[in-house]
Amino acid sequence: MSVASSRHFLQIPGPTNVPDRVLHAIAKPTIDHRGPDFADLALEVFDKLRAVVRTSADVVIYPSSGTGAWEAALVNTLSPGDAVLMCETGHFSGLWSELASTLGLRPETIAGDWRSGADPGAIEQRLRADTEHRIKAVAVVHNETSTGVVSDIPAVRAALDAADHPALLLVDTISSLGSVDYRHDDWGVDVTISCSQKGLMLPPGIGINAISAKALLAARSSTLLKSYWDWQPMLDSGKQGYFRFTPPTNLLFGLREALSMLLEEGLDEVVARHDRHAAATRAAVRAWGLEILCREPGTAPGTHHSSALTAVVMPPGHDADDLREIILDRFDTSLGAGLSKVAKKVFRIGHLGAFNDATLLGTLGVVEAGLGLAGVPHRTGGVTAAIAELTGRSGE
Amino acid sequence: MSVASSRHFLQIPGPTNVPDRVLHAIAKPTIDHRGPDFADLALEVFDKLRAVVRTSADVVIYPSSGTGAWEAALVNTLSPGDAVLMCETGHFSGLWSELASTLGLRPETIAGDWRSGADPGAIEQRLRADTEHRIKAVAVVHNETSTGVVSDIPAVRAALDAADHPALLLVDTISSLGSVDYRHDDWGVDVTISCSQKGLMLPPGIGINAISAKALLAARSSTLLKSYWDWQPMLDSGKQGYFRFTPPTNLLFGLREALSMLLEEGLDEVVARHDRHAAATRAAVRAWGLEILCREPGTAPGTHHSSALTAVVMPPGHDADDLREIILDRFDTSLGAGLSKVAKKVFRIGHLGAFNDATLLGTLGVVEAGLGLAGVPHRTGGVTAAIAELTGRSGE
Amino acid sequence: MSVASSRHFLQIPGPTNVPDRVLHAIAKPTIDHRGPDFADLALEVFDKLRAVVRTSADVVIYPSSGTGAWEAALVNTLSPGDAVLMCETGHFSGLWSELASTLGLRPETIAGDWRSGADPGAIEQRLRADTEHRIKAVAVVHNETSTGVVSDIPAVRAALDAADHPALLLVDTISSLGSVDYRHDDWGVDVTISCSQKGLMLPPGIGINAISAKALLAARSSTLLKSYWDWQPMLDSGKQGYFRFTPPTNLLFGLREALSMLLEEGLDEVVARHDRHAAATRAAVRAWGLEILCREPGTAPGTHHSSALTAVVMPPGHDADDLREIILDRFDTSLGAGLSKVAKKVFRIGHLGAFNDATLLGTLGVVEAGLGLAGVPHRTGGVTAAIAELTGRSGE
Amino acid sequence: MSVASSRHFLQIPGPTNVPDRVLHAIAKPTIDHRGPDFADLALEVFDKLRAVVRTSADVVIYPSSGTGAWEAALVNTLSPGDAVLMCETGHFSGLWSELASTLGLRPETIAGDWRSGADPGAIEQRLRADTEHRIKAVAVVHNETSTGVVSDIPAVRAALDAADHPALLLVDTISSLGSVDYRHDDWGVDVTISCSQKGLMLPPGIGINAISAKALLAARSSTLLKSYWDWQPMLDSGKQGYFRFTPPTNLLFGLREALSMLLEEGLDEVVARHDRHAAATRAAVRAWGLEILCREPGTAPGTHHSSALTAVVMPPGHDADDLREIILDRFDTSLGAGLSKVAKKVFRIGHLGAFNDATLLGTLGVVEAGLGLAGVPHRTGGVTAAIAELTGRSGE
Repeated sequence: MSVASSRHFLQIPGPTNVPDRVLHAIAKPTIDHRGPDFADLALEVFDKLRAVVRTSADVVIYPSSGTGAWEAALVNTLSPGDAVLMCETGHFSGLWSELASTLGLRPETIAGDWRSGADPGAIEQRLRADTEHRIKAVAVVHNETSTGVVSDIPAVRAALDAADHPALLLVDTISSLGSVDYRHDDWGVDVTISCSQKGLMLPPGIGINAISAKALLAARSSTLLKSYWDWQPMLDSGKQGYFRFTPPTNLLFGLREALSMLLEEGLDEVVARHDRHAAATRAAVRAWGLEILCREPGTAPGTHHSSALTAVVMPPGHDADDLREIILDRFDTSLGAGLSKVAKKVFRIGHLGAFNDATLLGTLGVVEAGLGLAGVPHRTGGVTAAIAELTGRSGE
Repeated sequence: MSVASSRHFLQIPGPTNVPDRVLHAIAKPTIDHRGPDFADLALEVFDKLRAVVRTSADVVIYPSSGTGAWEAALVNTLSPGDAVLMCETGHFSGLWSELASTLGLRPETIAGDWRSGADPGAIEQRLRADTEHRIKAVAVVHNETSTGVVSDIPAVRAALDAADHPALLLVDTISSLGSVDYRHDDWGVDVTISCSQKGLMLPPGIGINAISAKALLAARSSTLLKSYWDWQPMLDSGKQGYFRFTPPTNLLFGLREALSMLLEEGLDEVVARHDRHAAATRAAVRAWGLEILCREPGTAPGTHHSSALTAVVMPPGHDADDLREIILDRFDTSLGAGLSKVAKKVFRIGHLGAFNDATLLGTLGVVEAGLGLAGVPHRTGGVTAAIAELTGRSGE
Repeated sequence: MSVASSRHFLQIPGPTNVPDRVLHAIAKPTIDHRGPDFADLALEVFDKLRAVVRTSADVVIYPSSGTGAWEAALVNTLSPGDAVLMCETGHFSGLWSELASTLGLRPETIAGDWRSGADPGAIEQRLRADTEHRIKAVAVVHNETSTGVVSDIPAVRAALDAADHPALLLVDTISSLGSVDYRHDDWGVDVTISCSQKGLMLPPGIGINAISAKALLAARSSTLLKSYWDWQPMLDSGKQGYFRFTPPTNLLFGLREALSMLLEEGLDEVVARHDRHAAATRAAVRAWGLEILCREPGTAPGTHHSSALTAVVMPPGHDADDLREIILDRFDTSLGAGLSKVAKKVFRIGHLGAFNDATLLGTLGVVEAGLGLAGVPHRTGGVTAAIAELTGRSGE
Repeated sequence: MSVASSRHFLQIPGPTNVPDRVLHAIAKPTIDHRGPDFADLALEVFDKLRAVVRTSADVVIYPSSGTGAWEAALVNTLSPGDAVLMCETGHFSGLWSELASTLGLRPETIAGDWRSGADPGAIEQRLRADTEHRIKAVAVVHNETSTGVVSDIPAVRAALDAADHPALLLVDTISSLGSVDYRHDDWGVDVTISCSQKGLMLPPGIGINAISAKALLAARSSTLLKSYWDWQPMLDSGKQGYFRFTPPTNLLFGLREALSMLLEEGLDEVVARHDRHAAATRAAVRAWGLEILCREPGTAPGTHHSSALTAVVMPPGHDADDLREIILDRFDTSLGAGLSKVAKKVFRIGHLGAFNDATLLGTLGVVEAGLGLAGVPHRTGGVTAAIAELTGRSGE
């Protein structure tokens, strides 16, 4: 029942629905990347990006996917054989760990159950044990896109401080930046990794690093091979409003627009909007009688519900991908699949980026409709519960 | 809680949400309206428009609003002092009648209660009484946009035939074409009046007439003053793929695209989609315990629920405009106001044009949320009922 | 050698090349024409339009072609049988005169040779002879699009004043507004007629009237039949930021943008730019050894070269349409045809609207190339002469 | 005299003017990169890209700049310490050589004068001397963007064959692909490097490798560190229509459209169009009495004029950047700067990508105008000469 004339509902946890303002910005004629108009564009983008990352530090923008931004964070700060402490939060923390291995680093992973955030206590314990400071970086995924769990970055920072450990703190904010509260400076993060296609409301194609002074210092002694990802020439050119190599000009037009939109709305308001939509989504899931993958906050250390997406556990014997296929075919709505360990066991509802109440209720409505059509045992009334949550009438 | 980054829900009964394909078509560079590419465009648009009106007759396209298309139908077929039989179905039938008076015609109106369609029996009776054939035209609004009531055009045609009356049959399909089943040739209509911004999924700016051979013949003896609206020079130039005066080129780019989309989906499928969404909307309204303005089919002659919009009656003591304002402010969703006689007493939910299940459920969701916030007495569960209707599970 | 990937050069004297900013504005999602955002749009458009027309008087915007705006000016101010003094300047003054006849008016035309402007002396003489004031309006085309001749409106105004005649002064600025200096208030014009697709840099679809207090007064006693074009209800609704009938919303988005662009550049600068491009075009034509249709200023009363277009006379025995076809086929550039009396004898180069030096030189370059390919006797070096004119080096 | 309303002329040798069709494609809503629609997109893009590269081999697409595609070619095929034979053709061959050094390779460079192509004789001689086959790859820039010189790739291939040397042949086609004749398979190239923003008529953001079977084999034993650029996982996922990491979806929409446009026009026709425009540009430069940086074909081995850009040498004592600034300020036209060794000594006219005769003549026109304004000694009549060349009348 997909209708060619109406808009697809892209409710995966990224890429997200790109606002018309951003699509129009991207469709402007390309300009000379060595000319004065480009310098204005670049400097404005850097400034606004700093505001959204809540930092006064340096930022670097790559024509790349988020994977490239992961790689950039590692190759600029570390050297072959360095140990990196990683926290298993889900599929993406695992991929990052694999990347570290490929690059010749030695990731040490604190195991996790894919339903909890990074455990600050475990991190502190491991760092205290590392009396020789072989661990050069602690790498944490802020919002684990595969599970809908947010790790507590201030608590992780506190763990490093409590252990008095000099490791760098690297944080993947790929699916949190622009949706979930995040503060590079206040939280003492050394490298923030992000990209364009989630909370920043752009199509994919831009990778981002924000870099603390400590990380910049570490970069001087890093010996991992690097050229494309090398921060220093990017920073040198960026200060003058151009790029070391040809920049993704049209995506930067879009980034300027998207950052402006976030700042116009207000970062606190953006976060509150996502919190609200996430709460309404959870209300719907609970009303359906289904389980949320993320543990309840308080029941596992450093664990918070994601305001960017909600991963829903299927009842035993029901395949999440069958449900997703029905919802795509019948309702032209894309949901996120369960990945690797939770494949077919969960589906993910993205509620990040450009999103409003009506779109949320439409999304939850077709999920409820799909549950019925797929024969998944559930109670109806999920949308009713979400409405109650949205309107502050859930207690009635 | 309007969010600048997300898409407004434009759920008034027109203008409707314009699909991206159409918006992109409209944004193409304007071309020479006397060149060969334009002729291809014009001839394709005329052909596809005939297919959507389900006619092999002539069509004329004006740079105008729908009001202009109303005027064109009258000034081309009638002469000063001619009687026109009109049927009071709501606000728009009334405006059309006023227009006829302004033009020096003599509208005779069969009164109505704004909850029913044109009464074929009353029409037949009036025409039988007009033994001198002073009535030159019967003018009916197919889908009364102010009330959500559809009149039964085949029954009206049958009434003319039963009375053996030579009056022309003029039908306003402004808010039905492209949404509600309509057949110019099969139903023996003489002039079909329409425009761009409803079921045709375009912005406003195009007025349309489809013209039977009988209407063309009548035009030869019509003496009402006309120039801009004069059919003949438009038909003469149109046959060669150009326009008598500068055409609305970019809107025609959009019209070509929109007509193609309707024909790709299939007219029967388009009608079925709207029927389904209308049924789900009515299920929601009933679940809320609110009243639908349109009488139940069968309880009033020639009366059908509209598949393009649903007008909902507010409980006594509650102002529909207050509700609409809350829904606009809080949920960035526009609903239609009650007009003139039913101002503040009803609100109208548009479910026509480019529209899918998710958008419908989002719309109904924010209406339900708004009813709560506005303190309008209602039962929750409207969306749940709509989902049941959409998935064919309402009997469970 | 038309290349699908590159931009068509639309160098007819309208519709003109629509700037990307305007095309993007037109492609925004349509909004509720009864909502608060629309009122802001409408009021801003009216204000900026007044600034561009250089008036503090009322303006009315129609969903229509320019032909509709012509009709509106006549039906609102005049009554059946009224005499209108018209000046034959070319094809379009002729069409306007025909329209007046069709509407039941009595046009009296001062003959012209299609190479000169309206003759103020002849107008004064005719008005002085009209001692009974049967002539109710003087109608002049400011920039005759078919010939590239500009009439001297202040001199026409002076003629009316010298004759102490109460006739209204109606001026068609369809192809001058936004390109050629024009001042509704300063020049004592009663009705300014214009439309969207020329100097206003929009696609077609909008008709415009600006209306003096004297014209508004005349409208009260006008008895020509009118409804769609009736000023009064348009003015009443416009003051409150809405339209009497559904407005052409997306074209208004574009109009707001286009008016802003003109005002950002500065009206004087816009006029100077067009003057400069026209001078360079004439330099090229003279260098080719071809004749300009418009008489030299000073050789015919009230006659000025148009800064919006230049009509070029073909040498005897050469068909302008053959040349135009070669230039379209080989160079993907559209030029204007000669119309009616000068069909095939002249071609017209449009240099109005969104236009810069590079585009002008490209246009003149392909005209010169086309003259060669078509075997039209000419000297080369037209572009060289245009460059000299543009750079102020023509005297070297 | 830059006019905000008219289109900037972006005549640098890339990024190039992006056609409206491509801009519209890029502005489509982003889709799920794991869904069926995306697989269709990806497979179509790979197929059409192969057609444009004229290969049946594998292709890989990166979210990256062209610099990334350079790096990918090296890190996938080579190992630390490997010798790479490079040819100094200009600024970009030098940057590529620096990159090789940074990656731990040993570039050996055949010196050049920045006015000639890679010398096949010198390559053969060097390879014959390399009896131990320490040279693992020969890296040549096909169209040196900094000089406007095209190297003769078939002759380079013949040099490798004559020397019976097993080195891989790596060719940078960044500014030639889609403009200058190029044949990956016929010419025996092992890795073709390219990107989006030149002849492919896209904004920047996509890097491309086409990979011969021999190069794939070499990749198996390559030990340079790689992750993001690693071919194998990209090829594995690409075969199934998805990307190893999030793809630049909207740029791929644009790439599909741009490749379709090239194939619709026909690759031979595209090449012929660029040849023609380049010839006309050289005719203009010669008419001005200025020198072309590229040596005349035949006077230096392996040297051809570029059909993508023309680098023009300034007369002694005149600064090319002053000229460029005047042309940008006065005529809103961007030209390419001289880079490093030829900074301020040359300027570059880009005539690649979406480009037609009118745009070329406009570009040449403003260059001629700029030469005058800047006081650069020259003869006028460059555009006249270009017109003669374009119309095949230069011998008259």
